[in-house]
Amino acid sequence: MSRSLITLTTDFGTGSSYVAQMKGVILGINPEANIVDITHDVPPQDIAGGALVLRDVFAAFAPGTIHVAVIDPGVGTARRLIHADVQGRSYLAPDNGLLTLLDKKGLRRVVELTDRQYWRPQVSATFHGRDILAPVAAHLSLGIDPLLLGPPARDLVRFEQRIAISPGQVRGEIVSIDHFGNLITNINHTVLALAKIDPCHPSLRIHVGSIELSGIAKTYGEHSPETVIGLFGSGGYLEIAVVNGHAARQLHARRGDAIEVVSDVIP
Amino acid sequence: MSRSLITLTTDFGTGSSYVAQMKGVILGINPEANIVDITHDVPPQDIAGGALVLRDVFAAFAPGTIHVAVIDPGVGTARRLIHADVQGRSYLAPDNGLLTLLDKKGLRRVVELTDRQYWRPQVSATFHGRDILAPVAAHLSLGIDPLLLGPPARDLVRFEQRIAISPGQVRGEIVSIDHFGNLITNINHTVLALAKIDPCHPSLRIHVGSIELSGIAKTYGEHSPETVIGLFGSGGYLEIAVVNGHAARQLHARRGDAIEVVSDVIP
Amino acid sequence: MSRSLITLTTDFGTGSSYVAQMKGVILGINPEANIVDITHDVPPQDIAGGALVLRDVFAAFAPGTIHVAVIDPGVGTARRLIHADVQGRSYLAPDNGLLTLLDKKGLRRVVELTDRQYWRPQVSATFHGRDILAPVAAHLSLGIDPLLLGPPARDLVRFEQRIAISPGQVRGEIVSIDHFGNLITNINHTVLALAKIDPCHPSLRIHVGSIELSGIAKTYGEHSPETVIGLFGSGGYLEIAVVNGHAARQLHARRGDAIEVVSDVIP
Repeated sequence: MSRSLITLTTDFGTGSSYVAQMKGVILGINPEANIVDITHDVPPQDIAGGALVLRDVFAAFAPGTIHVAVIDPGVGTARRLIHADVQGRSYLAPDNGLLTLLDKKGLRRVVELTDRQYWRPQVSATFHGRDILAPVAAHLSLGIDPLLLGPPARDLVRFEQRIAISPGQVRGEIVSIDHFGNLITNINHTVLALAKIDPCHPSLRIHVGSIELSGIAKTYGEHSPETVIGLFGSGGYLEIAVVNGHAARQLHARRGDAIEVVSDVIP
Repeated sequence: MSRSLITLTTDFGTGSSYVAQMKGVILGINPEANIVDITHDVPPQDIAGGALVLRDVFAAFAPGTIHVAVIDPGVGTARRLIHADVQGRSYLAPDNGLLTLLDKKGLRRVVELTDRQYWRPQVSATFHGRDILAPVAAHLSLGIDPLLLGPPARDLVRFEQRIAISPGQVRGEIVSIDHFGNLITNINHTVLALAKIDPCHPSLRIHVGSIELSGIAKTYGEHSPETVIGLFGSGGYLEIAVVNGHAARQLHARRGDAIEVVSDVIP
Repeated sequence: MSRSLITLTTDFGTGSSYVAQMKGVILGINPEANIVDITHDVPPQDIAGGALVLRDVFAAFAPGTIHVAVIDPGVGTARRLIHADVQGRSYLAPDNGLLTLLDKKGLRRVVELTDRQYWRPQVSATFHGRDILAPVAAHLSLGIDPLLLGPPARDLVRFEQRIAISPGQVRGEIVSIDHFGNLITNINHTVLALAKIDPCHPSLRIHVGSIELSGIAKTYGEHSPETVIGLFGSGGYLEIAVVNGHAARQLHARRGDAIEVVSDVIP
């Protein structure tokens, strides 16, 4: 039997034992669970940041994976905890928008977690990740039907995405900055197609801050060091990078800054 | 057969390969061991900080777990390395106070690690975590009796806890500050009961720095953002938090700062 | 069957999901793979730093281990991706010098990774770690012969090591600074022997910055706090440390700084 895969995405950092406490609870229920850390460095209480991480790892994990996400500023209030299935992957999270970027094809088996038999006997007011989501994930990994976890849930919380699309023009934003300083946007091939922009068209320009870039590169290494380039990153989204450098520092760019792509329209 | 669980708590950080070297040694002896990182960001040589981590994860890990702790400023000197059993969990650590916060019900099977047949053949002077504790943990996970590891050990090193309890008054301290900036104290329900303080009594006040708080909240989300609150955290200890904020920065609080709870006494 | 061990060494940091994406790809191909993180905090694009990590963990991981290293500033350019066997361990990495410090006894089964049947169907231009190295590692862990991965490769890229050896004098450098502030050099027993220096000789002096140290200590704990000492670290290389302190800060030392050992020559 292959081992059940459970992933953890949180804003707990790695300096405390919070993540490990979740792992201990999971392994106490299913010692065979295979637990993979996605990241625990989502900025504290940054729901949009967590949603991006869940989107970015979607394709890399096979159906059957159980993804647990705990960015939960509302812990202990009336916010719901939910399960949802997206193309065979199970997601367990607070209902606060964390799944916003996943539901292209719709969420299935969406239930509110209410059945306490799958929780720890004692539930603290401040750590539902450990006391509810972790044991529920462990029980799911043992094969229980998600529909047993609680009643169906509707109208999940979603956040707005800031992007404006018109023919020949897309105005998006920098949604994250990675460890290398690359500026990752919310503009991908689908968005450009909606704006009738061909990413290879010679008229294409990218505006970021006071900089204008011409065209989209294929990879970092094809330009000389220090060059500012736009390219599609490994997640399929347009990134601004400095070859062998740190774009965020060099361009004084911050998350939330606007980025614009303009081009002649495909006839 | 369920896989043996070994946890690692160190002050090695994650920028070096020290932790991985321990894992390689463990898996070389027991390839089936399941190794869980607790944290490697205990501040360098901070024994009290490591002891807190071990206490905080105690309940989350089932009996049978082998906990290895390496905060070891005395490595290479005469300080002992020990094994102790606490309610079915095995602890392997230097004898420098790391187990101070665990032994409420007494340690059992306390032995000094002296039998070199369970060590690596070559033992470096500066990395007993890799060369002694890791292989001993691996052998334990394969089922050897801890009493084979060496002779009984007595009079383990312990550090003092700073807390003063009198009727209607507890004077404790901030023992750690977590990733969210919450100030975690050494005051729990047991301590308040010893001081004859009812945590729900309307007269209860908390003093931290120049701030006075009235009463203890149930959770972060029940107060408006920016409010300073006291509440019992997920480990059962009183915490000072700022709702959606960072208490340590806002209150200029530091580890070791005093915190006081006063109240009318339960009749 | 014992589980196949795959390790990951990258410069991705832990704040993004890049590492997790590699793990998802590996586990999608071999759900039984046991994945161990070496470190993901190699400084961005620091090939020499990555090479040191690979050297330092070599002995701790048993033959059969598959080591994947992704410090890859040339991703998407013509640089090769390679497999090499070193004493029974498999290494998968870009051919950019990452294996420089391993090949004391020569690399075997050196092949360029070209057979796309072991890759992900879609290969991004910027993330060959996920799209080529991860799936190849997973297939290796399932038992395929490395010679199937592509044609033999010769003349691997290597970087120069900066060390000058003459009778009674070694001039090396600080190659890394660990989490405790210890200054780790490229001088070990073998180097001293080549310079005809006995590490225990009373005439031995170490020069680092404007400091001169006399002799080499056995361990941190044998000197009083704040003392600056030289000692052989757990990897066998000379380190400069401050007992219970932080040598890099106290000595204003940086990676790349020169360090010199002089001594009367062994007759």
